[in-house]
Amino acid sequence: MRIGGTPWRTIWLAEDGCTVEVIDQTRLPWEVAVARLRTVEDAARAIRTMVVRGAPLIGAAAAYGVALAMRADASDAALADACAQLAATRPTAVNLRWALAEVRALLADLAAGERAEAAYRRAGEICDQDVETCRAIGRHGLDLIRAAATAKGAGAPVNVLTHCNAGWLATIDWGTATAPIYMAHDAGVAVHVWVDETRPRNQGAGLTAFELGEHGVPHTVIADNAGGHLMQHGMVDLCLVGTDRTAASGDVANKIGTYLKALAAHDNDVPFYVALPSTTIDWTVEDGRAEIPIEQRDGDEVAVIRGRAGDGTLQSVRVVPEASPVANYAFDVTPARLVSGLITERGVCAASRAGLEGLFPEHAPALSRRA
Amino acid sequence: MRIGGTPWRTIWLAEDGCTVEVIDQTRLPWEVAVARLRTVEDAARAIRTMVVRGAPLIGAAAAYGVALAMRADASDAALADACAQLAATRPTAVNLRWALAEVRALLADLAAGERAEAAYRRAGEICDQDVETCRAIGRHGLDLIRAAATAKGAGAPVNVLTHCNAGWLATIDWGTATAPIYMAHDAGVAVHVWVDETRPRNQGAGLTAFELGEHGVPHTVIADNAGGHLMQHGMVDLCLVGTDRTAASGDVANKIGTYLKALAAHDNDVPFYVALPSTTIDWTVEDGRAEIPIEQRDGDEVAVIRGRAGDGTLQSVRVVPEASPVANYAFDVTPARLVSGLITERGVCAASRAGLEGLFPEHAPALSRRA
Repeated sequence: MRIGGTPWRTIWLAEDGCTVEVIDQTRLPWEVAVARLRTVEDAARAIRTMVVRGAPLIGAAAAYGVALAMRADASDAALADACAQLAATRPTAVNLRWALAEVRALLADLAAGERAEAAYRRAGEICDQDVETCRAIGRHGLDLIRAAATAKGAGAPVNVLTHCNAGWLATIDWGTATAPIYMAHDAGVAVHVWVDETRPRNQGAGLTAFELGEHGVPHTVIADNAGGHLMQHGMVDLCLVGTDRTAASGDVANKIGTYLKALAAHDNDVPFYVALPSTTIDWTVEDGRAEIPIEQRDGDEVAVIRGRAGDGTLQSVRVVPEASPVANYAFDVTPARLVSGLITERGVCAASRAGLEGLFPEHAPALSRRA
Repeated sequence: MRIGGTPWRTIWLAEDGCTVEVIDQTRLPWEVAVARLRTVEDAARAIRTMVVRGAPLIGAAAAYGVALAMRADASDAALADACAQLAATRPTAVNLRWALAEVRALLADLAAGERAEAAYRRAGEICDQDVETCRAIGRHGLDLIRAAATAKGAGAPVNVLTHCNAGWLATIDWGTATAPIYMAHDAGVAVHVWVDETRPRNQGAGLTAFELGEHGVPHTVIADNAGGHLMQHGMVDLCLVGTDRTAASGDVANKIGTYLKALAAHDNDVPFYVALPSTTIDWTVEDGRAEIPIEQRDGDEVAVIRGRAGDGTLQSVRVVPEASPVANYAFDVTPARLVSGLITERGVCAASRAGLEGLFPEHAPALSRRA
């Protein structure tokens, strides 16, 4: 999508053909800075410190991380080491594991001398595939927004509530939850987005508001606490969020607080849709709440807030007394019963094993596979 | 309660017998500063800018505000003007209206020369009554915590989740939701409090964490988004919150986000109790969602966060792009169906008209009044 009128992706191969460049998302929305990844350690650090974040983008960055590792040392040991190092950065998003498995399987059969080039090529393909996947999600989700617009009547904007950043900054381009929004806006369907600020890291306030603003999509930032009130008063037509890992049952692990919005949507008959590339589906997980590991991050992400001071510099301020302990759970699991539907690159389905297997029959057990 | 071992109240008459002194809550938790109110304008400004906040404390400050007005001009016109000015400061909390009605009714029958002294005396009584009310709420709520402790078994702490600050800083002393917690802690019942940070003004992170810490109550600060996850995983035994206005039906208007926690409690069979002095009951309101006015405050409360910088100074940082609009709804309404019970100074009752009328029969319609 565009920043200041110029098209960007979140990650790309630099002109030297080996360095990987990314938008440094820890500097947004205040500065569009590019970070350079030259080693697998750089890639792992960028993922861990959230210079890059968002399940699909993490997967792409990890794939490039393996390529960077192979450039330095293409031995079996180095390959295993790079994959282990990258896999350990973040525990919840499953795309990371998926992308590493993809690249590793490809490289395993190759001679050491061919590995780096093959890894770069595969990482590039993963990026291009993700763009097409998000575009397809956008087309399917657009139908939902169009239907809501028709139901509301001419001119009234469709109010979409989103949580965290499942935008183009979380992917390579388009985003997952935002792809239908961008397509609706571009197609002239009036849409307005309630942007949850998304504590503790404020990805809504800092990233989603930024990217919607740069694309010209009307939006309003709200505290995470406000969504229930808005839904009680008919001010939300549709909730649209992303997911970091989707259980085969349709349970979704997404940014902490998603579950609370899903409860409010359910309580007020507001449709609650989750947009996802199929790479976030973990076919081995049935009970999301019990089985998906929830990352716990540093309490300082809650206690200390970074933003722009009056003098224009980026500063951090503490909002919790030093003596008070802080806990920081990064994700929660929304049970499938609260999800109106899953928007995938192959279409919209029920949040259930049957729904997912209907769209992805290759993952259904052989006996139940449809002809 | 105590700060650094010294007992405090939130509001008191200064030694000069006419100036009113309050803890300046906009400076907490970083500094315990005392603000002086010398005029009704000072009192109105202190309420509006949240130097004092919390429904019971707002009521007491408004009563003192009338006294300050009467000291300058005890005419009928000045009385009406003072009440109008103070009533306009905050729309949601009903204690404000209650306290103003109390003082005004008392003064209406008095000669101008007697009004100031009577207003000061009544304001002092309102404070003392509030302390006794909170103490009674604490005793009734303590039974609930004891029961939870017994159910958990010896030594395991009762995990209480609270939202915003319904602590002693929101009242004169003890607090509403915190009174049972302080009493449990003082009685040797192990209790641990999950403190919602409570965006946008961070009253949980800044005030509740501060006062629990000063009193030695174990607690952990969490993002508002985290409570649902904790409840899904059995880490919350009891939710305890306050209310700014309670409908006769048992609906409660409290800090924005309370409704989301009540939904999560209901979804996970966690008891959800609301502690309140009967002065927060609005017997004229039946449908809280439809009838209670919800204050909208400045969007900068969301966009700009104040805290302590590395150099020890208090600074503000912006977390939302300047071009993005912000909405800031201050309260939401939790329907009675999600409330396990109301803890009042007269005991615990169902969140319903029948429950409230059982404890406060003087407010029941004559025909349905019990013998």
